Amino acid sequence: MATVQSFKYALILISSIILNLFSANVFLRIRWEQSWTKMAAKEAETVASISCSGHGRAFLDGLVVNGKPICECNACFAGPDCSDFLSDCVVDADSGDPTFLEPFWEQHAASSAIVMAGWHRMSYEFNDGSLISEELKTHIRRVHDIVGNAVTDGRFIIFGAGATQLLNAAVRAISPEGSSSPEKVVASIPYYPVYKEQTEFLNSKNYKFSGDTSLWKSSAIDSSSSQNFIEFVTSPNNLDGQLKKAVLRGPFVKTIHDLAYYWPHFTAIPAPADEDLTIFTLSKLTGHAGSRFGWAIIKDEAVYHRMLTYMSISTYGVSRETQLRVLKLLKVVIEGKGREMYEFGYKTMKTRWDQLSKSVSLSKRFSIQDLEPHYCSFSGKVKKSSPAFAWLKCERQEDKHCCEVLKAAHITGRDGSLFGAESRYVRLSMVRSQDNFDLLLQRIEKLVTEEYASKSSMAPSVSRENKRNESMLLLLGSYS
Amino acid sequence: MATVQSFKYALILISSIILNLFSANVFLRIRWEQSWTKMAAKEAETVASISCSGHGRAFLDGLVVNGKPICECNACFAGPDCSDFLSDCVVDADSGDPTFLEPFWEQHAASSAIVMAGWHRMSYEFNDGSLISEELKTHIRRVHDIVGNAVTDGRFIIFGAGATQLLNAAVRAISPEGSSSPEKVVASIPYYPVYKEQTEFLNSKNYKFSGDTSLWKSSAIDSSSSQNFIEFVTSPNNLDGQLKKAVLRGPFVKTIHDLAYYWPHFTAIPAPADEDLTIFTLSKLTGHAGSRFGWAIIKDEAVYHRMLTYMSISTYGVSRETQLRVLKLLKVVIEGKGREMYEFGYKTMKTRWDQLSKSVSLSKRFSIQDLEPHYCSFSGKVKKSSPAFAWLKCERQEDKHCCEVLKAAHITGRDGSLFGAESRYVRLSMVRSQDNFDLLLQRIEKLVTEEYASKSSMAPSVSRENKRNESMLLLLGSYS
Repeated sequence: MATVQSFKYALILISSIILNLFSANVFLRIRWEQSWTKMAAKEAETVASISCSGHGRAFLDGLVVNGKPICECNACFAGPDCSDFLSDCVVDADSGDPTFLEPFWEQHAASSAIVMAGWHRMSYEFNDGSLISEELKTHIRRVHDIVGNAVTDGRFIIFGAGATQLLNAAVRAISPEGSSSPEKVVASIPYYPVYKEQTEFLNSKNYKFSGDTSLWKSSAIDSSSSQNFIEFVTSPNNLDGQLKKAVLRGPFVKTIHDLAYYWPHFTAIPAPADEDLTIFTLSKLTGHAGSRFGWAIIKDEAVYHRMLTYMSISTYGVSRETQLRVLKLLKVVIEGKGREMYEFGYKTMKTRWDQLSKSVSLSKRFSIQDLEPHYCSFSGKVKKSSPAFAWLKCERQEDKHCCEVLKAAHITGRDGSLFGAESRYVRLSMVRSQDNFDLLLQRIEKLVTEEYASKSSMAPSVSRENKRNESMLLLLGSYS
Repeated sequence: MATVQSFKYALILISSIILNLFSANVFLRIRWEQSWTKMAAKEAETVASISCSGHGRAFLDGLVVNGKPICECNACFAGPDCSDFLSDCVVDADSGDPTFLEPFWEQHAASSAIVMAGWHRMSYEFNDGSLISEELKTHIRRVHDIVGNAVTDGRFIIFGAGATQLLNAAVRAISPEGSSSPEKVVASIPYYPVYKEQTEFLNSKNYKFSGDTSLWKSSAIDSSSSQNFIEFVTSPNNLDGQLKKAVLRGPFVKTIHDLAYYWPHFTAIPAPADEDLTIFTLSKLTGHAGSRFGWAIIKDEAVYHRMLTYMSISTYGVSRETQLRVLKLLKVVIEGKGREMYEFGYKTMKTRWDQLSKSVSLSKRFSIQDLEPHYCSFSGKVKKSSPAFAWLKCERQEDKHCCEVLKAAHITGRDGSLFGAESRYVRLSMVRSQDNFDLLLQRIEKLVTEEYASKSSMAPSVSRENKRNESMLLLLGSYS
């Protein structure tokens, strides 16, 4: 009896010890797995969990109030948790800030997070002496292979701090030294203002911004004119989303293709670009405009080396933090079939374009660009565009300054004159946050409603017209 | 008896249950605390734990072989785990790569790690519309307050992609537009080559590199000469670690103070710099050269705005990844009494300087710079310098190209002619990894040993000289 009791004690004790050891082992194994990253991980998750009512977010390096970073609110929201809607605020549709992709990254929190150690890449150069990550270059080639929007085999790739830095690096690299007269830098109206601003500001002896391509068609093919041209070709065009080709022809013309928007979010991809010098930016691929990362794909080795020299002398390359982060983001872009982000992006942009163009189509006061569908090799079918911007035109004779018309309706757009076009045009950004787009759409619809309301208040004998107007008012009312 | 036994059973069981619940609770609490950062944390810790024999390290974005990033080896080490020492390799003492601080960051792994979420700061701008983090600016001011090396109260601060970008931004910002002749950009020999290279490469109409300051002393004060000057003042001087002041005087002279090395690692801090335009770089503060981060402290608001414009047009600011990481690193620099990193840095550099200068002091063939001690307000005492570079001179008549002498001894330095000085001088970097410095010291000692060995092999009648040489050989032998 005593033996049986002892045996029972022993059994219970042993079982208990085994169970405790098992728990302790698991516990210890978890503890051992994570050591020096724990503090940073906790900090990041804590900040990410700060509630900003779905209308903003807190960042690790935000202004600290009461011991935690503040909520940074979307357009027209305010308050400590961004829950206050400022109904009279001005919606900013000027900036091409591509935060429409932010929800995608929030949905991919685990795969897109990156931990940077304190000792990560402190050196000026990579171990091969270059300023460019080979792994990242490989992933960029892979991205282009999947999308089919650029030939990279046998091409040189260089990084820059955004397309911004690469545009100037490219102009310099293809302007020959010691030429008797500066190269003429041209672009087709309406063009991205940075081409002109940057070229003029940087005020080099070797090149000069010379306006619209249409002014130089004859000179470009006239060998006696001794003029050299650098043409910026933007496709899709920054403004209106149209696919474009070079305008100038001739042996004295070199081109820089700015293909920032040549991604499935915004356009059909008929064929891979295969130009002398092509520039892309992360801003419009993944939406990470703040990362300041772009790349150029270059055919000519001498041009490539001159651009490398420029990158070396101007900033000594792109930061290692940025290159690491971009690598992580592109791994997410590529994972699985490498299509998910584009499907998300296209769906978002297409919905917005449909909504906005439908609203504007009811208006006689305003119009936006027509975009033809194209065959898309990426999706395998004919696809309608879903441009980043609406190129809005004020049609009324008296509305010469379209920006002012929109300003009165609490909308800020970018004046067409900045693109070399008339002030009758305004560029409206559709790439911003959902809050921003919802408000833009609401304000546009309000303008269109007011257009019909003012027509309705005219002479009652125009009854058929009025009935149509009333139907329109009802229809619009159903969108708000 | 049965009751006592039952009670014992119950006690054991209850204790066991309590212990298991406790373990489970802790286990569950750990599990619940960490969600989306777990994968990134595990990835980072796994890569950090890859053994590279203490002579290299693996990075998250390194080339992947057999499913994991390769070890990137220090100078003269090789092999999959960097354990192979290449005894005949050339030690690179050319580059000013500041990896001497890497051990500090490895020791502070937990506090210096940062997790970047996939949605971190995607926008082009901060919420206040600027390109510059207010939190980071505040921390930079704090760093300067602690060290006492620069006045920041009432000054403007701007960020750049390294001092590299800021040097050119500064030259542009203080060159007036529309001047009849380009500003003369000057620096005192021996000067940092980038001043000349950058100014010439960027080939602006507004300014021109014009050599050594000593050529222009009279012109600078001659109001009839109508010449404007921009003088680069580097203090401590990049080459020889000397504290410097502006050379040119007069109303037509503007200065840009490059204070990259004005930190306690390298020099005494007599007083806070209070100049019109002062540039610092993270590279020489924390050792993170790859981050491409620098800042300028500016008195004049108009100059500040022109630099902001330059930053906007050339790269549209510094990447958000970099700004977040720098904030994290500076928090570590500031924590506690804010002195630990400087103490680590000074101890390392001082030891190296003492070792190298002791070795060279035994030589007649070579000499290095003398550095006077100065009062240091940071340490509260008179302090000897611990410069980043040795400015080595080949004293022998026939050794006109000192680089060649060193090359034969498997040392690469930077030719003095690149700094506007003679090729009799070579700049040797002492800021690199411990492996690199150890090898540099070894090679220098070997050269000095050979110098004595060759003297010893001369006529035996010079016995006193020989005896001295033999003692020297023995002494040197004790260093290797």
